[in-house]
Amino acid sequence: MKLDRLDQIGILYIDTERNNAINDEFIRDAHRLMDETEADPAIRALVVTSSHRSIFCPGVDLPSLMGRSGTEMRNFYQALTGIVRRKVAYPKPEVYALNGHTVAGGCMMALAGDCRLMASGRATFGLMEIDVGLAAPIGVVEMLQHFFGGRVAERVLFSGERFSPEGALALGLVDEVLEPERLMDRALEKARLLAGKPSGGYRRLKSYVRKSLAERMRSLDDAHLDQLVEQWFSQETQHLVTAAVQRMKRPAAA
Amino acid sequence: MKLDRLDQIGILYIDTERNNAINDEFIRDAHRLMDETEADPAIRALVVTSSHRSIFCPGVDLPSLMGRSGTEMRNFYQALTGIVRRKVAYPKPEVYALNGHTVAGGCMMALAGDCRLMASGRATFGLMEIDVGLAAPIGVVEMLQHFFGGRVAERVLFSGERFSPEGALALGLVDEVLEPERLMDRALEKARLLAGKPSGGYRRLKSYVRKSLAERMRSLDDAHLDQLVEQWFSQETQHLVTAAVQRMKRPAAA
Amino acid sequence: MKLDRLDQIGILYIDTERNNAINDEFIRDAHRLMDETEADPAIRALVVTSSHRSIFCPGVDLPSLMGRSGTEMRNFYQALTGIVRRKVAYPKPEVYALNGHTVAGGCMMALAGDCRLMASGRATFGLMEIDVGLAAPIGVVEMLQHFFGGRVAERVLFSGERFSPEGALALGLVDEVLEPERLMDRALEKARLLAGKPSGGYRRLKSYVRKSLAERMRSLDDAHLDQLVEQWFSQETQHLVTAAVQRMKRPAAA
Repeated sequence: MKLDRLDQIGILYIDTERNNAINDEFIRDAHRLMDETEADPAIRALVVTSSHRSIFCPGVDLPSLMGRSGTEMRNFYQALTGIVRRKVAYPKPEVYALNGHTVAGGCMMALAGDCRLMASGRATFGLMEIDVGLAAPIGVVEMLQHFFGGRVAERVLFSGERFSPEGALALGLVDEVLEPERLMDRALEKARLLAGKPSGGYRRLKSYVRKSLAERMRSLDDAHLDQLVEQWFSQETQHLVTAAVQRMKRPAAA
Repeated sequence: MKLDRLDQIGILYIDTERNNAINDEFIRDAHRLMDETEADPAIRALVVTSSHRSIFCPGVDLPSLMGRSGTEMRNFYQALTGIVRRKVAYPKPEVYALNGHTVAGGCMMALAGDCRLMASGRATFGLMEIDVGLAAPIGVVEMLQHFFGGRVAERVLFSGERFSPEGALALGLVDEVLEPERLMDRALEKARLLAGKPSGGYRRLKSYVRKSLAERMRSLDDAHLDQLVEQWFSQETQHLVTAAVQRMKRPAAA
Repeated sequence: MKLDRLDQIGILYIDTERNNAINDEFIRDAHRLMDETEADPAIRALVVTSSHRSIFCPGVDLPSLMGRSGTEMRNFYQALTGIVRRKVAYPKPEVYALNGHTVAGGCMMALAGDCRLMASGRATFGLMEIDVGLAAPIGVVEMLQHFFGGRVAERVLFSGERFSPEGALALGLVDEVLEPERLMDRALEKARLLAGKPSGGYRRLKSYVRKSLAERMRSLDDAHLDQLVEQWFSQETQHLVTAAVQRMKRPAAA
């Protein structure tokens, strides 16, 4: 990951060797950059985007998790739900410029932002954990229900649908869909608008809408951590995850 | 009521002598069929529809309730709110194929499903309890607020409006509106999609979105049961209910 | 403020020397008229509108607050959040006919109504407290989240956007947008519809959707009252509020 600065805006490019899939290193880097940008008074808002041609973030790096022990999976899930909760409670404005596929864990993070803009085209947006037998972490379910209501949460979660940018817009999951070449300009415009708000007021306002949500998420996530690990090691899920990893190793068809 | 099977899908036809109005027998049959379908591993999803030409479910069978004692009404309300809560917590996917009027108690049950498809045409969808002086059970109010937010809940409840299929779609109360001849095919398609999800994962996911809702509903319903009974026997409501029952006895105008 | 009566409808015209800005007198008058209309059985529903040509309510009367002590500001904030909570819990139907700008505190009150109709044209609708460094009272944040979900609440609050009538309609913040000359007729029609509901049932139903909301608002407002006052006296906010008051004193450009 790389941090650029443009006036008072920090631009965070997700850019990893694993096509932006979330693994230990991804989470470590994300925390490091959030520490840096949160502490730096010269940065008043963030834009988060990706350097990849067609992927914003494809979710968890499944191959990196194969063969892990129960304790290791427990640690990974704590880290994964922790980064989402940190984004929920991040005190500065965070604008997502979704320039490619935004799915599973990548979608969870983007949903925690203050605002989501997405490029029109073939990229998809969705939470498809269910298709490998994984219920989304309960804290993420709570976040979806809080932001969009229980019904939209269910439409997103039950079907595991990959929404088009327009489909995501229709449900309110993203705020605007733009031509790809307009995406970054509009994201910077939004970030400047929010960066221009009185920072003490914004920080307080954001804590009003997010603090109790982040606390509910932590308490639910903690209470269900054993279930997440148990689910990972269930026969159903191990079978589906192994098959998914096998598919990734095959060269993609044209 | 009748249960058909098509591969892994159970198709439940509501079909009663009382034009599908909800009475003791309706509730008993509904529980029996939910027991059966829940226990049977060969059924992975349900489609719920009606055999009636123009009515899915018209709500409570008012004539069957006339002259009941306080204890009897208390029992009936417990059974009525209980069937809605059971549907909220039902662990398998339930797709509603609404082929006719879906009102009052019928609407409450359909809203508890995982997905609602409605036939275009003259059928209506709504909660009009208010027009006979009855507030909807508080658990149903909670369910509406949870799924659609407080504002949509109020639009539905305050006016007692009978929404057209398109009006219900615009508020998100139903998910799709289809030509009547396409309704069942699409419902089966949806049910197959959900039946195809890993069942352990789906069960867990559904409990994440529904378990605490069902618990809140039970606790609210229990605390307000006396109010429901008191309201039923209020002068205002008895007057309106009696008039409604009189109107039902008259032959319908052309 | 002035109360007219038309059959069973009370029509409340906001009409003050300070262009309908909310100050101590406004709040006192509002309580007095709510006392009167709540107690009078001949009034079954309210329409709230304004006598001003282009302003429904512009929010708090900032000049009236300059130079107040901490205790005085504490009292004012208690009164301001109190009038919003009272409207949330007001037992009779309240229809807002928004015939002009409806912003900040004016918007908070309108959002507490049972239904909002807005005249098309140049009037705006929004909560722009953030632009003078003020987070909206946390009870109002809770109300927005309850009615519209967390995401719409954030869109309204973070940006401080002044929505057009059509923009407010698209987010569900208002229920209908009408030609100005049609506004009052339609508001009366809506009020008559709601006035025609059985009053015991309506009162109970409204308490089901509003009572626990009003209680959560009170408990949050009480817990955050010191923060509101502290925020008012912060350097950031005093600077912005003083500048805003200066701008008001200048003659408006053409």
